[in-house]
Amino acid sequence: MSRVINFYPGPSALPLEALESAEQEIRDWRGTGMSVLEISHRSQEYVELHDGTKELFKKLLNIPEDYEILMLQGGASLQFAMIPMNLLSEDETAGYVITGSFSKNAYKAAGALKKVYCAASTEEDGKFFRIPGKKELSMEPGSVYCHLTSNNTIFGTQWKAFPDTGSVPLICDMSSDILSRRLDFKPFGLIYAGAQKNLGPAGVTLIIIRNDLVEKSGRDLPDILSYKVHAGKNSLYNTPSCFAVYMMNKVLKWVEKKGGLAVIEKQNEKKAELLYGAIDENPDFFKSRVEKESRSTMNVTFNLPSGELESEFVSEAQKERIIGVKGHRSVGGIRVSMYNAHGLDDIEVLVSFMKNFLSKKG
Amino acid sequence: MSRVINFYPGPSALPLEALESAEQEIRDWRGTGMSVLEISHRSQEYVELHDGTKELFKKLLNIPEDYEILMLQGGASLQFAMIPMNLLSEDETAGYVITGSFSKNAYKAAGALKKVYCAASTEEDGKFFRIPGKKELSMEPGSVYCHLTSNNTIFGTQWKAFPDTGSVPLICDMSSDILSRRLDFKPFGLIYAGAQKNLGPAGVTLIIIRNDLVEKSGRDLPDILSYKVHAGKNSLYNTPSCFAVYMMNKVLKWVEKKGGLAVIEKQNEKKAELLYGAIDENPDFFKSRVEKESRSTMNVTFNLPSGELESEFVSEAQKERIIGVKGHRSVGGIRVSMYNAHGLDDIEVLVSFMKNFLSKKG
Repeated sequence: MSRVINFYPGPSALPLEALESAEQEIRDWRGTGMSVLEISHRSQEYVELHDGTKELFKKLLNIPEDYEILMLQGGASLQFAMIPMNLLSEDETAGYVITGSFSKNAYKAAGALKKVYCAASTEEDGKFFRIPGKKELSMEPGSVYCHLTSNNTIFGTQWKAFPDTGSVPLICDMSSDILSRRLDFKPFGLIYAGAQKNLGPAGVTLIIIRNDLVEKSGRDLPDILSYKVHAGKNSLYNTPSCFAVYMMNKVLKWVEKKGGLAVIEKQNEKKAELLYGAIDENPDFFKSRVEKESRSTMNVTFNLPSGELESEFVSEAQKERIIGVKGHRSVGGIRVSMYNAHGLDDIEVLVSFMKNFLSKKG
Repeated sequence: MSRVINFYPGPSALPLEALESAEQEIRDWRGTGMSVLEISHRSQEYVELHDGTKELFKKLLNIPEDYEILMLQGGASLQFAMIPMNLLSEDETAGYVITGSFSKNAYKAAGALKKVYCAASTEEDGKFFRIPGKKELSMEPGSVYCHLTSNNTIFGTQWKAFPDTGSVPLICDMSSDILSRRLDFKPFGLIYAGAQKNLGPAGVTLIIIRNDLVEKSGRDLPDILSYKVHAGKNSLYNTPSCFAVYMMNKVLKWVEKKGGLAVIEKQNEKKAELLYGAIDENPDFFKSRVEKESRSTMNVTFNLPSGELESEFVSEAQKERIIGVKGHRSVGGIRVSMYNAHGLDDIEVLVSFMKNFLSKKG
């Protein structure tokens, strides 16, 4: 069957090149006579892949020298627990900015373990349609970090500029927009991301952590939950999710070949311009509830005039081989998740479908 | 390049059929027009695969109805922490039987979190060449569970019969021998296993947990560390390691096609007979340090008369396309890891190589 246009929110579309390359190698990787699925994580071949993947991250994201790169299992959700476990003592506290479901989960997980507080929230009637303004953040003195979520997949909001918390480092869940734009690392103590949106398949979590936080981490924790242990063992303390790392490597190489992050960023801006343009042209039919300044370039959400039209939109789209546009069950409506793997052409097909749909049903 | 005989201890050899099937489907899974690497874990197709994999486990291992099957991330090492976190309160205790490096790690992780004790150890000079006898176990009154490791990959020992701890449930790390033999679940409260030996690639961990322990679990823990949450959400609380589950499904189907666990068990016994037979025929050259009653059918370890001969053995084997037989760095010597994917023919090739090596160097 020919390829669909896959707008799933994650796991999500990967570059076709990466899949083709994996297909070529799946029975015999690098002339080893075995699959990358079968090779020891202690083998020279795997360790080269592992280290090469870290180097690619360093290069593409321009990560400063004083940060360590970890590739662990457990998803962003395990980081919700590991961050306070590693970085907060019983007497310390940290602020959490609540801008969506996942930041709420992060706050809840931290609250089960340590004393943390809500530094800002944009929740209204259980929904989140904006990012807080600079003046809305209220940090308690002595806070060890400020946690935020850079992009909210469910509601379709995104931080365009990160808040200035002075010497308090930001800790940021970038699961759904890492590698989508260039990044100044200065305010960040720790950045983490599940791979399954812009980086690769599910199964591996990227963590970029400043060395002083690595040093601070891990006190009295089991090894598997300690950043210090993982950093000291080059993320090979236990068997990593080798195949997910392997696919991530292929995705990073594809980004490099496309021209790197500046090119990707430009493409993502163009895609967003095109899609939000179509929405704004017919705001009574394509109803965006997200504050304009908070609009995500990754996940675009909107409603149609009725729930029936929304169901029809989803099923008509499917007939045109456009998949995964149903909104999250907690908000309904339509959601288009357009990560790095989508070219402008995918969005053009979608916009043309939207215009046809409008002309038939509007 | 033609296929090598891969005796890596894990990640390790997979059935060729499973790899070929993945190769066929990697760009278009089940006519979806996308890869299984790209599909949402909330899609009907993935959920069917997920549930089907659990059903296959139930059927092949003959798992009783009062056990829940979880498929999580983090490896056995994360279970080292999750088990005491979920099952022990501050006042409770549990016994750990130490028979190798991984059981020692499990004990250490639990000790960082709760009050646990060593119920038996077979350590001598930092090494472990036997499984304890029934009378060596010393359980403290009121113990909540007894933890053991069914097979020790590094030293090559294996429990042939499990100890009787009365009403105290056994909790067992079966990472390196699950699905290698039939199993009576009665004594077990929880069984766990990283997939990367007999089940599939690295990246997913199987947990089989009795319902009463699920009920007891999770108090005041972050969701991601709670068995109760994972069981309540069918292991879809967060994004699972979808591709690893997919490959596991293929491996289970292969086991089913081979005739199930009784056939696999018989094959593993024959393989062990053949290899240990070759060792015992020339005990002055192939020096087994493992007590005979404790010999593993999965990992066979032995030494040669000198370190030089051992290095030569490894490099000569490699020339014959026999890979991964170098012993673990902590014990040296030779280790052959022969999991389910190895047929008797692989062991015949190895034994014939060993005999040639002996005739040249012995």
